[in-house]
Amino acid sequence: MGVNSNRVEHFDSHQTIIKIQTELSMPPMEIHKVRLPPETTTFNKLKNRLTEIFFPDDPLYRFKNQTWFMKLLLGLQYLFPIFQWAPEYNLRLLRSDVISGLTIASLAIPQGISYAKLANLPPIVGLYSSFVPPLIYSLLGSSRHLGVGPVSIASLVMGSMLSETVSYNEDPILYLQLAFTATFFAGLFQASLGILRLGFVIDFLSKATLVGFTAGAAVIVSLQQLKGLLGIAHFTSKMQIVSVLISVFKQREEWLWQTMLMGFCFLAFLLTTRHISMRKPKLFWVSAAAPLTSVVLSTLLVFLLRHKAHGIAVIGHLPKGVNPPSANMLYFNGRYLALAIKTGIVTGILSLTEGIAVGRTFAALKNYQVDGNKEMMAIGLMNIAGSCSSCYVTTGSFSRSAVNYNAGAQTTVSNIILASAVLVTLLFLMPLFYYTPNFILAAIILTAVIGLIDYQAAYKLWKVDKLDFLACLCSFFGVLFISVPLGLAIAVGVSVFKILLHVTRPNTLVLGNLPGTQIYQSLNRYREALRVPSFLILAVESPIYFANSTYLQERILRWIREEEERIKANNESTLKCIILDMTAVTAMDTSGIDTISELRKMLEKRSLQLVLANPVGSVMEKLHQSKILDSFGLRGLYLTVGEAVADISSLWKAQP
Amino acid sequence: MGVNSNRVEHFDSHQTIIKIQTELSMPPMEIHKVRLPPETTTFNKLKNRLTEIFFPDDPLYRFKNQTWFMKLLLGLQYLFPIFQWAPEYNLRLLRSDVISGLTIASLAIPQGISYAKLANLPPIVGLYSSFVPPLIYSLLGSSRHLGVGPVSIASLVMGSMLSETVSYNEDPILYLQLAFTATFFAGLFQASLGILRLGFVIDFLSKATLVGFTAGAAVIVSLQQLKGLLGIAHFTSKMQIVSVLISVFKQREEWLWQTMLMGFCFLAFLLTTRHISMRKPKLFWVSAAAPLTSVVLSTLLVFLLRHKAHGIAVIGHLPKGVNPPSANMLYFNGRYLALAIKTGIVTGILSLTEGIAVGRTFAALKNYQVDGNKEMMAIGLMNIAGSCSSCYVTTGSFSRSAVNYNAGAQTTVSNIILASAVLVTLLFLMPLFYYTPNFILAAIILTAVIGLIDYQAAYKLWKVDKLDFLACLCSFFGVLFISVPLGLAIAVGVSVFKILLHVTRPNTLVLGNLPGTQIYQSLNRYREALRVPSFLILAVESPIYFANSTYLQERILRWIREEEERIKANNESTLKCIILDMTAVTAMDTSGIDTISELRKMLEKRSLQLVLANPVGSVMEKLHQSKILDSFGLRGLYLTVGEAVADISSLWKAQP
Repeated sequence: MGVNSNRVEHFDSHQTIIKIQTELSMPPMEIHKVRLPPETTTFNKLKNRLTEIFFPDDPLYRFKNQTWFMKLLLGLQYLFPIFQWAPEYNLRLLRSDVISGLTIASLAIPQGISYAKLANLPPIVGLYSSFVPPLIYSLLGSSRHLGVGPVSIASLVMGSMLSETVSYNEDPILYLQLAFTATFFAGLFQASLGILRLGFVIDFLSKATLVGFTAGAAVIVSLQQLKGLLGIAHFTSKMQIVSVLISVFKQREEWLWQTMLMGFCFLAFLLTTRHISMRKPKLFWVSAAAPLTSVVLSTLLVFLLRHKAHGIAVIGHLPKGVNPPSANMLYFNGRYLALAIKTGIVTGILSLTEGIAVGRTFAALKNYQVDGNKEMMAIGLMNIAGSCSSCYVTTGSFSRSAVNYNAGAQTTVSNIILASAVLVTLLFLMPLFYYTPNFILAAIILTAVIGLIDYQAAYKLWKVDKLDFLACLCSFFGVLFISVPLGLAIAVGVSVFKILLHVTRPNTLVLGNLPGTQIYQSLNRYREALRVPSFLILAVESPIYFANSTYLQERILRWIREEEERIKANNESTLKCIILDMTAVTAMDTSGIDTISELRKMLEKRSLQLVLANPVGSVMEKLHQSKILDSFGLRGLYLTVGEAVADISSLWKAQP
Repeated sequence: MGVNSNRVEHFDSHQTIIKIQTELSMPPMEIHKVRLPPETTTFNKLKNRLTEIFFPDDPLYRFKNQTWFMKLLLGLQYLFPIFQWAPEYNLRLLRSDVISGLTIASLAIPQGISYAKLANLPPIVGLYSSFVPPLIYSLLGSSRHLGVGPVSIASLVMGSMLSETVSYNEDPILYLQLAFTATFFAGLFQASLGILRLGFVIDFLSKATLVGFTAGAAVIVSLQQLKGLLGIAHFTSKMQIVSVLISVFKQREEWLWQTMLMGFCFLAFLLTTRHISMRKPKLFWVSAAAPLTSVVLSTLLVFLLRHKAHGIAVIGHLPKGVNPPSANMLYFNGRYLALAIKTGIVTGILSLTEGIAVGRTFAALKNYQVDGNKEMMAIGLMNIAGSCSSCYVTTGSFSRSAVNYNAGAQTTVSNIILASAVLVTLLFLMPLFYYTPNFILAAIILTAVIGLIDYQAAYKLWKVDKLDFLACLCSFFGVLFISVPLGLAIAVGVSVFKILLHVTRPNTLVLGNLPGTQIYQSLNRYREALRVPSFLILAVESPIYFANSTYLQERILRWIREEEERIKANNESTLKCIILDMTAVTAMDTSGIDTISELRKMLEKRSLQLVLANPVGSVMEKLHQSKILDSFGLRGLYLTVGEAVADISSLWKAQP
């Protein structure tokens, strides 16, 4: 380890210290040595790294020090969380669950029908999707408040992506096949993310991105609903604002005043109830019951007017009975397979993001934790099962979960109650929907998606973080003017670019001493901080990587140049030593090491000393391995800026 | 600013402090306030940010406080660096430049012919490219040692990319058109990067990536040279190891023993001279003169044997005269335009990376600085001019620059001397190359590219940074088995992924106090560091972003769980306070803010206090803007961990 060995020590796993004392001159104050992290093998390092990537939550900690019977029981409880609370289930809990289950059923039935229409699927598929998935989730899911079923975003994305290539009206069988296949792949993708513990993939959809994306999609969907509300028969299948607007205004002769009148009345009613529930959360049932009420009322109205107003589009005949099996409809080869997989992955990731976020939100409210990877498996398996029983993509829906939570749901039994209510509907009540008009479905969708335009969140983004706001805007306009998947891709790109930008152009600060302390802080931020004569203390606020090493070298040289100009102008004592505070340099790659080494050489040629203060463990290790530590010599590395300043200035005093 | 206002102060640009003293209980030791950075408008912040992105080197600083005449002169010197040293140029400098210019000419002429063959271009284009570009560079370039001309990597990439679609043998005119057009776009791209100050784009080709990429390309090129060395007539145009190997061994009946014998003899000679020069840098002229010597010798040999050994492939007739204009051959529409643009961008970025790196290396040796953006403009303009005068992509070549430097070049005049020597060759010596055999070109290329396989650098990457080594391997195998542009894309992807991985899974450390100091360091690294009873001090070593906020929340909760288990097992005093050392949290987005706020709420429910220590300026600003600082209350924010511990424990003592 050469001349520098007195400052570098290994603190190995056996808790022994290798001390090589070759100190030549004892510094006058106590100077702490900068340590290397405990030595480990490459294999162990890799193991720790991989554990941190894939098992940051240490999922097996519950199994430690348990008998094998307990391990089995815990394993069962992990796979089927229902076993965690089933033994303590009682009548009081059941009562709450029944009430909340029936409440969400009243919301889920009209929602299911409407969202299926959003995906260009037959309305009955929406009901099917509110039956099987909640049952599966109640067995596997770890959230106690998640209300499961079709959701608007995933529905509209599936509808738009499939309709660009295949039209439901022209080839309904193919369209259904593709929808179920996409659902299958969505489930497979979701379950794989959970099983492979790659859940962090969904973290790359930042909240800012989602706010913009959701708002953009909501705007398009709202405009699309004008089809139902205005009674237009011919409409574009494109999910793009220009074609939608053209469709709305080109077919003005198709507008139907009866539909418009009733549609807007019910829309006003739904929006009012929504407004009431938002103002007074206790009145949540007002908005929860409104959709079913409007469906019943509008169906009655249309039924009574059936001989007078003809052109009003209604749902028509719906088949009775539970979900027919659809495993035989999955489509695993042929020219549309790529489309189905793409749609599956996009809807899968979107619905997963929503489901996990909703689960986490309500878990935080009741102070329990939701295991992200477990939830992904549950949602994934639920969608795989759904794809074999005529369901399309489902997940935890925000609106249902909120109603579920507010109605007092205690466990996932409320999902079983919901499924039972849907079952009764499927078996006996289907004929009642014959006269349900399309405009009421449009009104329900409109009410739901208008709530998705979260302008307050966007305003907060603008206030707090302009770049987040930019990501939000990009995804909003990307969805609006280009297409849903491309808008999403642009938004993710902007988010990643934001990270890279921070890495490419990191902050560097000049530090000064707070008088009477060992604290060094930014001169710009702390007016009382003082420059230390003959020293330039710089803090680098980022890892030093290939992407910023050139920049940092130039920037540091510029700081030195500016400092020398300032010193010249003020006639202060000449600059002799540059201290780099490395506290925030949390990583370094080989380019970073080369940069530091080159910088040292350049400064040496100008008779300036370069000193590193407080390198973190991994950086210290790399500096050591690359042998450049040796070139820094006896006084090139300190634990704190304070110690560096004290030691070096005492040396200068000793050798004037 | 609510209850927290006593800790938050604005230090505004007018150097006044708004102090709102609402301190309720005076802490017993001096506690420093955490400051907000000086207030600036959004516009100013954006301006600073953009300045830091595009003008980190403050390029106009030389122009400050100068008369308009000086400004003009400085501007002229900036555009044409030749004006910087021309006034002081003298005979002594000229002598050095003439010697080095003639030395590189002896290397550049055989190299130019060989590299042109590498790009599947007629050999004469290689000579043209050693004439015009050095002249342009000597006017515009800021490096004094750069030897300009065709380089192996850019040549082979251009050759492989164009040959995949167009064959030179089938349609030589189209191939030439595409090559000149690609050169034009390469130059345009390079100059634009320089003018738009987007030079940091090339930083994303990390050294690790380039080591792997170059080695992979060198392996393929070496194998391809077997064509010339073995005398094979029919050979694949694909740049992919499998097809190259098939070509070599399938055409065994085409192998020619005369070619092989002479080829391998000259190869051995060239490799030996290279080895000598590498061992003794003073003997650099041995390897510099070897290519020309071998060309002369082998040409003579083939001339003498011309009646005995027939099948030996020779260069044949080369036209006399200087570069013909080729602006009329640029190809701006038609089906191959996309190919030309793509090839231009890829070769442009690769040659730029090499040119800039070589320029920086030699500038560092002589302690002067090379302006990256200026260099990009110079290289770009040189290529644009080249594309109009029958040249293909050129840049600063490592081998020529090394010879130039070692031969004592002082200024870019050596490039003018080089160009003059090439001019003489073009005008008078072309017939001498008639009998120059192809195998000698293959041997020259082989000697050059074998030096590009830098296994020592790869070994160092492995030693110091395993992930860098992975990036290196990926680009190596990507180039070898897939294709040059895809291999490059994969390598850049791996490098970016590495950055993202660090951001997605950042380090968190438990800190302890070094006894007798205010220093808090990692317990794992510093054996003497002690835990502070009832406190858990965590350092987060990364910005808190959407991509890691979920992970960090889970990881922090796990640290707390583990600490509580440890406390229980050891019967220590219960945990009461979590301190997050935010020194290395150099940025935060809205997701990060939500995470901190949520974490605080979760810990509050478990009667644990969350305290932040030393948030950096931008984080402090965002915490303040999002109003979550208020919820942290009077004792939620400290300047250092030490002050937090002191203040909070003194409070506990006062209220037991």
